[in-house]
Amino acid sequence: MAGPQKPPKSRKKSKPGLIIVHTGNGKGKTTAALGLAFRALGYGWKILMVQFIKGNWKYGELEAAKRFEGRLEIKPMGEGFTWDTKNPERDRQKAQEAWEFGKHAALSGKYQMVIFDEITYVMSYDYLAVKDVIEFLKSKPSALHVVLTGRDAPQELIDLADLVTEMREIKHPFAQGIKAQKGIEF
Amino acid sequence: MAGPQKPPKSRKKSKPGLIIVHTGNGKGKTTAALGLAFRALGYGWKILMVQFIKGNWKYGELEAAKRFEGRLEIKPMGEGFTWDTKNPERDRQKAQEAWEFGKHAALSGKYQMVIFDEITYVMSYDYLAVKDVIEFLKSKPSALHVVLTGRDAPQELIDLADLVTEMREIKHPFAQGIKAQKGIEF
Repeated sequence: MAGPQKPPKSRKKSKPGLIIVHTGNGKGKTTAALGLAFRALGYGWKILMVQFIKGNWKYGELEAAKRFEGRLEIKPMGEGFTWDTKNPERDRQKAQEAWEFGKHAALSGKYQMVIFDEITYVMSYDYLAVKDVIEFLKSKPSALHVVLTGRDAPQELIDLADLVTEMREIKHPFAQGIKAQKGIEF
Repeated sequence: MAGPQKPPKSRKKSKPGLIIVHTGNGKGKTTAALGLAFRALGYGWKILMVQFIKGNWKYGELEAAKRFEGRLEIKPMGEGFTWDTKNPERDRQKAQEAWEFGKHAALSGKYQMVIFDEITYVMSYDYLAVKDVIEFLKSKPSALHVVLTGRDAPQELIDLADLVTEMREIKHPFAQGIKAQKGIEF
Protein backbone atom coordinates (compact mmCIF):
# COMPACT_ATOMS: atom_id res chain seq x y z
CA MET A 1 0.00 0.00 0.00
CA ALA A 2 3.07 2.31 -0.14
CA GLY A 3 2.84 5.17 -2.59
CA PRO A 4 2.04 8.84 -2.89
CA GLN A 5 -1.68 8.21 -2.36
CA LYS A 6 -1.07 6.99 1.17
CA PRO A 7 1.91 8.64 2.89
CA PRO A 8 3.22 6.70 5.87
CA LYS A 9 1.94 8.03 9.14
CA SER A 10 4.55 9.66 11.32
CA ARG A 11 5.69 7.55 14.25
CA LYS A 12 4.32 10.14 16.62
CA LYS A 13 0.90 10.23 15.04
CA SER A 14 0.57 6.50 14.99
CA LYS A 15 0.75 6.28 18.77
CA PRO A 16 -2.70 6.32 20.26
CA GLY A 17 -3.45 8.26 23.38
CA LEU A 18 -4.06 5.94 26.27
CA ILE A 19 -7.09 5.66 28.50
CA ILE A 20 -5.66 5.23 31.99
CA VAL A 21 -7.66 4.38 35.11
CA HIS A 22 -6.47 4.58 38.72
CA THR A 23 -8.98 2.92 40.99
CA GLY A 24 -9.11 1.05 44.29
CA ASN A 25 -9.50 2.01 47.95
CA GLY A 26 -5.87 3.01 48.55
CA LYS A 27 -3.86 6.19 48.42
CA GLY A 28 -2.07 7.23 45.29
CA LYS A 29 -4.78 7.44 42.65
CA THR A 30 -4.69 11.22 42.34
CA THR A 31 -1.02 11.35 43.33
CA ALA A 32 -0.02 9.01 40.51
CA ALA A 33 -2.08 11.09 38.07
CA LEU A 34 -0.11 14.07 39.32
CA GLY A 35 3.11 12.12 38.68
CA LEU A 36 1.98 11.45 35.12
CA ALA A 37 1.31 15.16 34.73
CA PHE A 38 4.73 16.03 36.14
CA ARG A 39 6.45 13.70 33.69
CA ALA A 40 4.38 15.03 30.78
CA LEU A 41 5.15 18.63 31.75
CA GLY A 42 8.79 17.75 31.16
CA TYR A 43 7.89 16.99 27.54
CA GLY A 44 6.29 20.37 27.11
CA TRP A 45 2.76 18.99 27.07
CA LYS A 46 -0.33 20.91 28.01
CA ILE A 47 -2.47 19.20 30.62
CA LEU A 48 -5.88 19.80 32.11
CA MET A 49 -6.98 18.32 35.40
CA VAL A 50 -10.68 18.53 36.18
CA GLN A 51 -11.35 17.87 39.82
CA PHE A 52 -14.75 16.45 40.68
CA ILE A 53 -14.50 16.36 44.48
CA LYS A 54 -14.61 19.56 46.44
CA GLY A 55 -11.39 20.40 48.16
CA ASN A 56 -9.41 17.45 46.85
CA TRP A 57 -6.91 19.62 45.05
CA LYS A 58 -4.13 20.69 47.40
CA TYR A 59 -2.06 23.75 47.96
CA GLY A 60 1.20 21.94 47.21
CA GLU A 61 0.41 21.01 43.64
CA LEU A 62 -1.27 24.34 42.94
CA GLU A 63 1.99 26.04 43.91
CA ALA A 64 4.17 23.57 42.00
CA ALA A 65 1.98 23.90 38.90
CA LYS A 66 2.78 27.62 38.77
CA ARG A 67 6.27 26.74 37.61
CA PHE A 68 4.97 25.59 34.23
CA GLU A 69 3.50 28.75 32.71
CA GLY A 70 -0.05 27.56 32.77
CA ARG A 71 0.67 24.25 31.03
CA LEU A 72 -0.93 22.36 33.90
CA GLU A 73 -4.42 23.78 34.29
CA ILE A 74 -6.43 22.77 37.30
CA LYS A 75 -10.17 23.18 37.38
CA PRO A 76 -11.57 22.30 40.78
CA MET A 77 -15.31 22.13 41.20
CA GLY A 78 -15.08 24.51 44.11
CA GLU A 79 -18.75 24.15 44.96
CA GLY A 80 -19.01 20.64 43.69
CA PHE A 81 -19.77 17.25 45.04
CA THR A 82 -19.35 16.60 48.74
CA TRP A 83 -20.00 13.43 50.68
CA ASP A 84 -22.64 14.92 52.95
CA THR A 85 -24.59 16.79 50.36
CA LYS A 86 -27.90 18.31 51.30
CA ASN A 87 -28.69 19.24 47.73
CA PRO A 88 -28.26 16.41 45.27
CA GLU A 89 -29.84 18.38 42.43
CA ARG A 90 -27.24 21.10 42.75
CA ASP A 91 -24.47 18.48 42.94
CA ARG A 92 -25.76 16.77 39.84
CA GLN A 93 -25.76 20.08 38.01
CA LYS A 94 -22.21 20.89 39.14
CA ALA A 95 -20.99 17.43 38.13
CA GLN A 96 -22.57 17.85 34.71
CA GLU A 97 -21.00 21.27 34.30
CA ALA A 98 -17.56 19.93 35.19
CA TRP A 99 -17.99 17.03 32.81
CA GLU A 100 -19.12 19.25 29.94
CA PHE A 101 -16.25 21.62 30.60
CA GLY A 102 -13.68 18.82 30.63
CA LYS A 103 -15.16 17.06 27.61
CA HIS A 104 -15.16 20.18 25.48
CA ALA A 105 -11.62 21.05 26.56
CA ALA A 106 -10.52 17.51 25.70
CA LEU A 107 -12.10 17.79 22.25
CA SER A 108 -10.54 21.22 21.63
CA GLY A 109 -7.17 19.72 20.66
CA LYS A 110 -5.45 22.12 23.05
CA TYR A 111 -4.28 19.43 25.49
CA GLN A 112 -2.18 16.28 25.22
CA MET A 113 -3.55 14.91 28.49
CA VAL A 114 -6.79 15.44 30.37
CA ILE A 115 -7.24 14.09 33.88
CA PHE A 116 -10.74 13.57 35.27
CA ASP A 117 -9.85 13.31 38.91
CA GLU A 118 -12.22 11.40 41.20
CA ILE A 119 -14.77 11.22 38.43
CA THR A 120 -15.92 7.74 39.44
CA TYR A 121 -17.66 9.15 42.50
CA VAL A 122 -20.06 11.26 40.48
CA MET A 123 -20.73 8.19 38.34
CA SER A 124 -21.41 6.11 41.47
CA TYR A 125 -23.90 8.73 42.63
CA ASP A 126 -25.55 8.77 39.19
CA TYR A 127 -24.75 12.43 38.75
CA LEU A 128 -23.02 11.50 35.51
CA ALA A 129 -24.01 8.59 33.28
CA VAL A 130 -21.33 5.96 32.70
CA LYS A 131 -22.49 5.71 29.09
CA ASP A 132 -21.75 9.42 28.51
CA VAL A 133 -18.18 8.89 29.68
CA ILE A 134 -17.78 5.75 27.57
CA GLU A 135 -19.19 7.48 24.51
CA PHE A 136 -16.76 10.37 24.91
CA LEU A 137 -13.79 8.02 25.40
CA LYS A 138 -14.70 6.07 22.27
CA SER A 139 -14.75 9.23 20.18
CA LYS A 140 -11.88 11.13 21.79
CA PRO A 141 -9.01 12.46 19.66
CA SER A 142 -6.78 9.43 19.12
CA ALA A 143 -3.60 11.14 20.36
CA LEU A 144 -5.18 12.43 23.57
CA HIS A 145 -4.28 10.68 26.83
CA VAL A 146 -7.17 10.55 29.28
CA VAL A 147 -6.68 9.68 32.94
CA LEU A 148 -9.66 8.88 35.16
CA THR A 149 -9.36 8.32 38.89
CA GLY A 150 -11.51 7.24 41.80
CA ARG A 151 -12.76 4.20 43.70
CA ASP A 152 -15.09 1.65 42.20
CA ALA A 153 -14.43 2.35 38.54
CA PRO A 154 -17.37 0.90 36.59
CA GLN A 155 -16.66 -2.30 34.68
CA GLU A 156 -17.48 -0.69 31.31
CA LEU A 157 -14.70 1.81 31.95
CA ILE A 158 -12.22 -0.89 32.93
CA ASP A 159 -13.15 -2.85 29.83
CA LEU A 160 -12.50 0.14 27.57
CA ALA A 161 -9.32 1.39 29.27
CA ASP A 162 -5.80 0.58 28.08
CA LEU A 163 -4.11 0.72 31.46
CA VAL A 164 -5.86 0.08 34.77
CA THR A 165 -4.16 0.06 38.14
CA GLU A 166 -5.88 -0.71 41.40
CA MET A 167 -4.39 1.12 44.36
CA ARG A 168 -5.09 -1.14 47.35
CA GLU A 169 -4.77 0.12 50.89
CA ILE A 170 -2.50 -2.16 52.86
CA LYS A 171 -1.86 0.24 55.71
CA HIS A 172 -3.04 3.78 56.36
CA PRO A 173 -1.64 6.14 58.99
CA PHE A 174 -5.05 7.47 60.03
CA ALA A 175 -5.88 3.99 61.23
CA GLN A 176 -2.88 4.24 63.51
CA GLY A 177 -3.80 7.58 65.00
CA ILE A 178 -1.33 9.64 62.98
CA LYS A 179 -2.64 13.02 61.91
CA ALA A 180 -2.85 14.27 58.33
CA GLN A 181 0.54 15.37 57.04
CA LYS A 182 1.28 18.59 55.26
CA GLY A 183 2.83 17.76 51.93
CA ILE A 184 1.54 14.20 52.05
CA GLU A 185 -2.15 14.38 52.72
CA PHE A 186 -2.89 18.02 51.92
CA MET B 1 0.86 19.78 82.13
CA ALA B 2 0.69 23.37 80.80
CA GLY B 3 3.31 25.72 82.18
CA PRO B 4 6.64 27.35 81.47
CA GLN B 5 8.58 24.14 82.19
CA LYS B 6 7.08 22.46 79.20
CA PRO B 7 6.42 24.78 76.28
CA PRO B 8 3.90 23.39 73.83
CA LYS B 9 5.49 21.85 70.81
CA SER B 10 4.82 23.70 67.59
CA ARG B 11 2.21 21.99 65.46
CA LYS B 12 4.73 21.62 62.69
CA LYS B 13 7.42 19.98 64.80
CA SER B 14 5.08 17.50 66.36
CA LYS B 15 4.25 15.90 63.03
CA PRO B 16 6.38 12.87 62.38
CA GLY B 17 7.75 12.10 58.98
CA LEU B 18 5.99 9.17 57.42
CA ILE B 19 7.42 5.94 56.06
CA ILE B 20 5.52 5.35 52.82
CA VAL B 21 5.71 2.19 50.71
CA HIS B 22 4.40 1.74 47.16
CA THR B 23 4.52 -1.91 46.22
CA GLY B 24 2.70 -4.40 43.97
CA ASN B 25 2.97 -5.55 40.38
CA GLY B 26 1.14 -2.62 38.78
CA LYS B 27 2.08 0.71 37.31
CA GLY B 28 2.16 3.84 39.41
CA LYS B 29 4.63 3.06 42.18
CA THR B 30 7.33 5.42 40.95
CA THR B 31 4.77 7.73 39.36
CA ALA B 32 2.92 8.20 42.64
CA ALA B 33 6.26 8.89 44.38
CA LEU B 34 6.83 11.53 41.74
CA GLY B 35 3.39 12.95 42.49
CA LEU B 36 4.29 13.16 46.19
CA ALA B 37 7.48 14.97 45.19
CA PHE B 38 5.55 17.36 42.97
CA ARG B 39 3.16 18.22 45.78
CA ALA B 40 6.02 18.64 48.24
CA LEU B 41 7.90 20.90 45.83
CA GLY B 42 4.93 23.22 46.05
CA TYR B 43 5.64 23.56 49.77
CA GLY B 44 9.22 24.56 49.10
CA TRP B 45 10.60 21.25 50.33
CA LYS B 46 13.90 19.77 49.29
CA ILE B 47 13.63 16.23 47.99
CA LEU B 48 16.10 13.54 47.03
CA MET B 49 15.19 10.60 44.82
CA VAL B 50 17.71 7.77 44.72
CA GLN B 51 17.02 5.48 41.79
CA PHE B 52 18.17 1.88 42.18
CA ILE B 53 17.27 0.53 38.75
CA LYS B 54 19.30 1.52 35.76
CA GLY B 55 17.42 3.62 33.26
CA ASN B 56 14.23 3.82 35.23
CA TRP B 57 14.42 7.58 35.55
CA LYS B 58 12.86 9.24 32.55
CA TYR B 59 13.56 12.31 30.48
CA GLY B 60 10.18 13.87 31.28
CA GLU B 61 10.70 14.15 35.01
CA LEU B 62 14.33 15.17 34.65
CA GLU B 63 13.17 18.11 32.53
CA ALA B 64 10.27 18.99 34.82
CA ALA B 65 12.55 18.84 37.88
CA LYS B 66 14.68 21.61 36.40
CA ARG B 67 11.90 24.07 37.13
CA PHE B 68 12.56 23.82 40.87
CA GLU B 69 16.09 25.18 41.26
CA GLY B 70 17.60 21.93 42.35
CA ARG B 71 15.06 21.24 45.07
CA LEU B 72 14.29 17.87 43.52
CA GLU B 73 17.58 16.02 43.24
CA ILE B 74 17.67 12.82 41.26
CA LYS B 75 20.49 10.32 41.71
CA PRO B 76 20.20 7.50 39.24
CA MET B 77 22.53 4.54 39.61
CA GLY B 78 23.58 4.95 36.01
CA GLU B 79 25.64 1.79 36.07
CA GLY B 80 23.52 0.10 38.63
CA PHE B 81 21.36 -2.94 38.88
CA THR B 82 19.98 -4.49 35.70
CA TRP B 83 17.80 -7.56 35.32
CA ASP B 84 20.22 -9.48 33.14
CA THR B 85 23.36 -8.79 35.09
CA LYS B 86 26.53 -10.62 34.20
CA ASN B 87 28.33 -9.26 37.22
CA PRO B 88 26.45 -9.63 40.50
CA GLU B 89 29.40 -8.48 42.60
CA ARG B 90 29.56 -5.19 40.76
CA ASP B 91 25.79 -4.80 41.09
CA ARG B 92 25.99 -5.48 44.82
CA GLN B 93 28.67 -2.84 45.17
CA LYS B 94 26.64 -0.28 43.19
CA ALA B 95 23.53 -1.02 45.22
CA GLN B 96 25.51 -0.57 48.44
CA GLU B 97 26.97 2.71 47.19
CA ALA B 98 23.53 4.04 46.27
CA TRP B 99 22.17 3.00 49.66
CA GLU B 100 25.02 4.60 51.58
CA PHE B 101 24.66 7.77 49.53
CA GLY B 102 20.91 7.96 50.15
CA LYS B 103 21.21 7.09 53.82
CA HIS B 104 23.81 9.75 54.52
CA ALA B 105 21.85 12.34 52.55
CA ALA B 106 18.73 11.42 54.53
CA LEU B 107 20.60 11.83 57.82
CA SER B 108 22.12 15.16 56.75
CA GLY B 109 18.97 17.09 57.61
CA LYS B 110 19.09 18.76 54.19
CA TYR B 111 15.94 17.10 52.86
CA GLN B 112 12.31 16.90 53.96
CA MET B 113 11.68 13.84 51.79
CA VAL B 114 13.91 11.07 50.47
CA ILE B 115 12.60 8.59 47.91
CA PHE B 116 14.34 5.23 47.50
CA ASP B 117 12.92 4.28 44.14
CA GLU B 118 12.74 0.57 43.25
CA ILE B 119 14.81 -0.26 46.30
CA THR B 120 12.92 -3.49 46.94
CA TYR B 121 14.58 -5.14 43.94
CA VAL B 122 18.06 -4.85 45.38
CA MET B 123 16.69 -6.27 48.62
CA SER B 124 15.10 -9.17 46.74
CA TYR B 125 18.46 -9.88 45.11
CA ASP B 126 20.21 -9.70 48.50
CA TYR B 127 22.37 -6.83 47.31
CA LEU B 128 21.10 -4.86 50.27
CA ALA B 129 20.08 -6.35 53.62
CA VAL B 130 16.49 -5.71 54.70
CA LYS B 131 17.75 -5.28 58.27
CA ASP B 132 20.00 -2.38 57.20
CA VAL B 133 17.00 -0.60 55.71
CA ILE B 134 14.86 -1.29 58.78
CA GLU B 135 17.61 -0.09 61.12
CA PHE B 136 17.95 3.15 59.17
CA LEU B 137 14.18 3.72 59.13
CA LYS B 138 13.96 3.18 62.88
CA SER B 139 16.63 5.80 63.52
CA LYS B 140 15.77 8.30 60.80
CA PRO B 141 15.17 11.96 61.69
CA SER B 142 11.60 12.06 62.97
CA ALA B 143 10.47 14.83 60.61
CA LEU B 144 11.87 13.17 57.49
CA HIS B 145 9.44 11.53 55.08
CA VAL B 146 10.85 8.41 53.45
CA VAL B 147 9.22 6.82 50.40
CA LEU B 148 10.27 3.34 49.26
CA THR B 149 9.01 1.76 46.05
CA GLY B 150 9.19 -1.56 44.22
CA ARG B 151 7.51 -4.93 43.92
CA ASP B 152 7.52 -7.49 46.69
CA ALA B 153 8.22 -5.18 49.60
CA PRO B 154 9.50 -7.34 52.46
CA GLN B 155 7.07 -7.94 55.32
CA GLU B 156 9.38 -6.26 57.87
CA LEU B 157 9.19 -3.07 55.81
CA ILE B 158 5.40 -3.25 55.54
CA ASP B 159 5.19 -3.83 59.30
CA LEU B 160 7.29 -0.75 60.03
CA ALA B 161 5.74 1.59 57.44
CA ASP B 162 3.00 4.09 58.21
CA LEU B 163 1.35 4.06 54.80
CA VAL B 164 1.48 1.13 52.39
CA THR B 165 -0.29 1.01 49.04
CA GLU B 166 -0.25 -1.95 46.71
CA MET B 167 -0.48 -0.98 43.05
CA ARG B 168 -2.14 -3.96 41.36
CA GLU B 169 -2.10 -4.40 37.63
CA ILE B 170 -5.62 -4.88 36.34
CA LYS B 171 -4.84 -4.14 32.71
CA HIS B 172 -1.64 -3.21 30.94
CA PRO B 173 -1.38 -1.87 27.40
CA PHE B 174 1.70 -3.95 26.54
CA ALA B 175 -0.44 -7.04 26.98
CA GLN B 176 -2.72 -5.64 24.29
CA GLY B 177 0.04 -4.95 21.79
CA ILE B 178 0.21 -1.21 22.36
CA LYS B 179 3.72 0.21 22.28
CA ALA B 180 5.37 2.20 25.06
CA GLN B 181 4.11 5.79 25.13
CA LYS B 182 6.25 8.89 25.37
CA GLY B 183 5.20 10.80 28.42
CA ILE B 184 3.51 7.77 29.94
CA GLU B 185 6.02 4.96 29.91
CA PHE B 186 9.25 6.86 29.34
